[in-house]
Amino acid sequence: MATSASARLQEPRPPASDGMNAADGPDGRSRFVRNAWYIAAWADDVTRSAPLGRTLLNEPLVLWRTEDGIPVALEDRCCHRHVPLSLGRITGRTLQCGYHGLEFDATGQCVKIPGQARIPPGAHVPAFPAVERHRWIWVWMGDPGRADPGQIPDYRWLDSPDWTAPVGEFHLKAHYQLLVDNLLDFSHLQFVHRRTIGTDAIADIPSSTERCENRLEITRWIMDSPPPPLFDRAYGGFGGNVDRWMNCSYTAPSSVTFDIGCALAGTGAPEGDRSQGIEIRSLHGITPETDRTTLYFWGYARNFRLDDDALTELLAKGASATFAEDVEVLAEQQAMLDRSGRTGFVDIGGDSAGLLARRLVAAQLAAETGAC
Amino acid sequence: MATSASARLQEPRPPASDGMNAADGPDGRSRFVRNAWYIAAWADDVTRSAPLGRTLLNEPLVLWRTEDGIPVALEDRCCHRHVPLSLGRITGRTLQCGYHGLEFDATGQCVKIPGQARIPPGAHVPAFPAVERHRWIWVWMGDPGRADPGQIPDYRWLDSPDWTAPVGEFHLKAHYQLLVDNLLDFSHLQFVHRRTIGTDAIADIPSSTERCENRLEITRWIMDSPPPPLFDRAYGGFGGNVDRWMNCSYTAPSSVTFDIGCALAGTGAPEGDRSQGIEIRSLHGITPETDRTTLYFWGYARNFRLDDDALTELLAKGASATFAEDVEVLAEQQAMLDRSGRTGFVDIGGDSAGLLARRLVAAQLAAETGAC
Amino acid sequence: MATSASARLQEPRPPASDGMNAADGPDGRSRFVRNAWYIAAWADDVTRSAPLGRTLLNEPLVLWRTEDGIPVALEDRCCHRHVPLSLGRITGRTLQCGYHGLEFDATGQCVKIPGQARIPPGAHVPAFPAVERHRWIWVWMGDPGRADPGQIPDYRWLDSPDWTAPVGEFHLKAHYQLLVDNLLDFSHLQFVHRRTIGTDAIADIPSSTERCENRLEITRWIMDSPPPPLFDRAYGGFGGNVDRWMNCSYTAPSSVTFDIGCALAGTGAPEGDRSQGIEIRSLHGITPETDRTTLYFWGYARNFRLDDDALTELLAKGASATFAEDVEVLAEQQAMLDRSGRTGFVDIGGDSAGLLARRLVAAQLAAETGAC
Repeated sequence: MATSASARLQEPRPPASDGMNAADGPDGRSRFVRNAWYIAAWADDVTRSAPLGRTLLNEPLVLWRTEDGIPVALEDRCCHRHVPLSLGRITGRTLQCGYHGLEFDATGQCVKIPGQARIPPGAHVPAFPAVERHRWIWVWMGDPGRADPGQIPDYRWLDSPDWTAPVGEFHLKAHYQLLVDNLLDFSHLQFVHRRTIGTDAIADIPSSTERCENRLEITRWIMDSPPPPLFDRAYGGFGGNVDRWMNCSYTAPSSVTFDIGCALAGTGAPEGDRSQGIEIRSLHGITPETDRTTLYFWGYARNFRLDDDALTELLAKGASATFAEDVEVLAEQQAMLDRSGRTGFVDIGGDSAGLLARRLVAAQLAAETGAC
Repeated sequence: MATSASARLQEPRPPASDGMNAADGPDGRSRFVRNAWYIAAWADDVTRSAPLGRTLLNEPLVLWRTEDGIPVALEDRCCHRHVPLSLGRITGRTLQCGYHGLEFDATGQCVKIPGQARIPPGAHVPAFPAVERHRWIWVWMGDPGRADPGQIPDYRWLDSPDWTAPVGEFHLKAHYQLLVDNLLDFSHLQFVHRRTIGTDAIADIPSSTERCENRLEITRWIMDSPPPPLFDRAYGGFGGNVDRWMNCSYTAPSSVTFDIGCALAGTGAPEGDRSQGIEIRSLHGITPETDRTTLYFWGYARNFRLDDDALTELLAKGASATFAEDVEVLAEQQAMLDRSGRTGFVDIGGDSAGLLARRLVAAQLAAETGAC
Repeated sequence: MATSASARLQEPRPPASDGMNAADGPDGRSRFVRNAWYIAAWADDVTRSAPLGRTLLNEPLVLWRTEDGIPVALEDRCCHRHVPLSLGRITGRTLQCGYHGLEFDATGQCVKIPGQARIPPGAHVPAFPAVERHRWIWVWMGDPGRADPGQIPDYRWLDSPDWTAPVGEFHLKAHYQLLVDNLLDFSHLQFVHRRTIGTDAIADIPSSTERCENRLEITRWIMDSPPPPLFDRAYGGFGGNVDRWMNCSYTAPSSVTFDIGCALAGTGAPEGDRSQGIEIRSLHGITPETDRTTLYFWGYARNFRLDDDALTELLAKGASATFAEDVEVLAEQQAMLDRSGRTGFVDIGGDSAGLLARRLVAAQLAAETGAC
């Protein structure tokens, strides 16, 4: 079902402003897909030494671990007088509010109130399914009965022994869909990133986009050409021209991974044999924090020269500097959208994947509200 | 009419959310008791060298002194073009606007307009009754005809020669009732103040609460026990066990004083003979500034070792550090209340005094609006 | 048609609050005169090395120059995804968006979209007439068909070889009309500027005000008196008493220039012969940025000792310090107006010119909306 991006552009499309606003509710607040796994934090940042407060989908969460090391996500608001539980302490098996000492177990049930024996009915806080996977703590913000860990997007390159992955995070001052738009569009590379990874060529490389349920797969190949400088420097001599791929996988609502690499030309990479090449996975974990801010987690994994710390450092700095350029321009875009009321957009060819992604999100939202 | 706190809890109570919101008007703005004396500033901060701008109950005030040293409180807004009068200068007997030089006397009447002889009708600003007492300037924000200085809450320990009282103030980023709740509840001591004065015992000490018109008197006694470390260190040997009291007096809407101390056991302290003991008055003057901020004045008076400056310094630092812990947690509580819409509170035993205090405030508000 | 200020005050006047609010729309947002030339920037700040973002009348503009050096003003919002064009680059003959590289010519038409040949209909951004004159870039925010450069207010003293003019600018945190009020009123000098140029005398000097279409001319003369200290110091001996003038010219909506000077008494200055005197032009260019902020440009020109750099420096510092005092008090006034709802003003004599100016603006606004 692969179609070319240009063909995709011929499809009838709703007005652009709809496309940009699909996720907004009538009150001007964003509506977020709730039945999805979102990254709440790096696993290392969720400990037993202190609870961690985070906001996801405009809601306050507190993250901590039980004595068994199991991650827990509760509403970060004591049911007594609404003090954030993240100001409290982790006791043996409970999270203790820092104000009056109420204690909550991993299910959110209040199990102790200092100075009184009785626990009143209603003394609990909402708990959210939480899973540790691929160095992240994932939280399910929707119907708990549908929280299937099997649906957690695949980021196995972060914790596989066959890969080395420096990581980082940004606090993005923009709606998460602006970041998804950004990642699904290659045409901005030569402008936003002209001081880092920008290349004039990239916007002109033909791509194909495949849709499969809640995923988009975008494929780009450049055959039999000189290896690009980054790969040449990072890896060493390929001994000739290479076949090079720049693939992108999007899983709605907000997971984006890139599969980038090259192999000696004619050794079968397009057919799946990458043994004569090297691979990089540029991994982007995106979590709506508020209507106007986003938690942006990233990793930059490679499957070669795994123990070369200097290379790891070099790639980490490069990736971080590049993503920081996006973070900066998206904050400016959000600020202008807030000024201008977000109507009157003119679409271009590079928007096709981003607009498709917004439709997948719109479909998820519609399914949640029973509208389809 | 003393009743135990636990008995008090059996009373029918309005839903908790009502208790928390009683003072809010339908527009979401706070309603404040107006017929009350509020502390506007330390008396030393109101001088003739420069006027002092303050906000009380959301309204801008300017404080200054006449040639006779009498404190004056006017609306801090020139009737001409609304420039704050606190930017101006104090002249012989007037406050002069810093923009066009209009002069106002202690009644708020405009008495001079540079460049013209005529004073237009309506050229005045509201004046508020102001009284200097106990090192503070008190202002009456309500009906001037009811401004009886006899109703100023008693803080005589601040300026009595028989007491020594270090003082301080905080700018609290929370509604004033959150601070009243905090002070009337002892159960938070072991959690908020566990690094300073916290003690596991305190929440379990039985207390009795007495209501008398617009006041609450909370009484706690621990009989015939070792002197607590603070008193032991500050005073020296009691020569044996002590009878110890921790009493709290609340006057609606926002005055809280603690009467703390201990005396050699069996020497009659419970019956009123404190001659074999020492006393501390922890004094809290609370003024609503805005819906979300509060002027918080405190003093920490003692009746022993009056001239021991090192002890004064020690107690001042201790009190300030302790109160700062409350100021911090209350700001976090206010921020979360602003996020959560302030519904759905679960009450516990420690709330009883705070909920009673809110009823006293609600009664005062109802009386002002003629509703009872 | 000259009338005295006092006579002017006898006219029937609308209530003061109307006078203060005439320019506000029913939604609480300011309405600004659009058919007028506004100063957007110093000409030197609009270059080809980088575009300059500015806000005028609440709208985002980007300023740049074509290869011929012609200044251009476009809406600072790419029609594609609303990223500010001021983040982009100036190419040969276009402004290139920094996100996806769309290019716009001096008319605002999109002339290039990387990666595609077709330019969609509607791919343009609004352009505004822009003219460089008197060291400033002037922009017309209204009906382009009415943009007559002949209507640009006269500030020729800024770039005339016969004058020397230090310049500067402020970002004022107040509505522009508060600054116009301030400049048209001399009575504030002795209060706001008592540490700089304040003089007790000035409020009592009789003035006459003449209205001519969209202009006000305010004239003040002091005949046959000792030269004021500033002029005496800056110029040297006049050899006797002087005739001195302090004239002010206002052109609606927001241009104010002062013609200040003195000449040897009896040499004909009042009749127009200023050959025995010296002149200063205090020049104020005022541009509404938002409802609550203003771009404030100034120059301070003289026609004597043109090459005396020490004098230039002295006058620049003096002017800047004086205007900074106004900027400070107006920000406080604006903050208080925002608190108080802007009703209930008491007018005084010194307001007459400011109130007349507001009527001229009201007439311009009414003309634009077809109401008169």
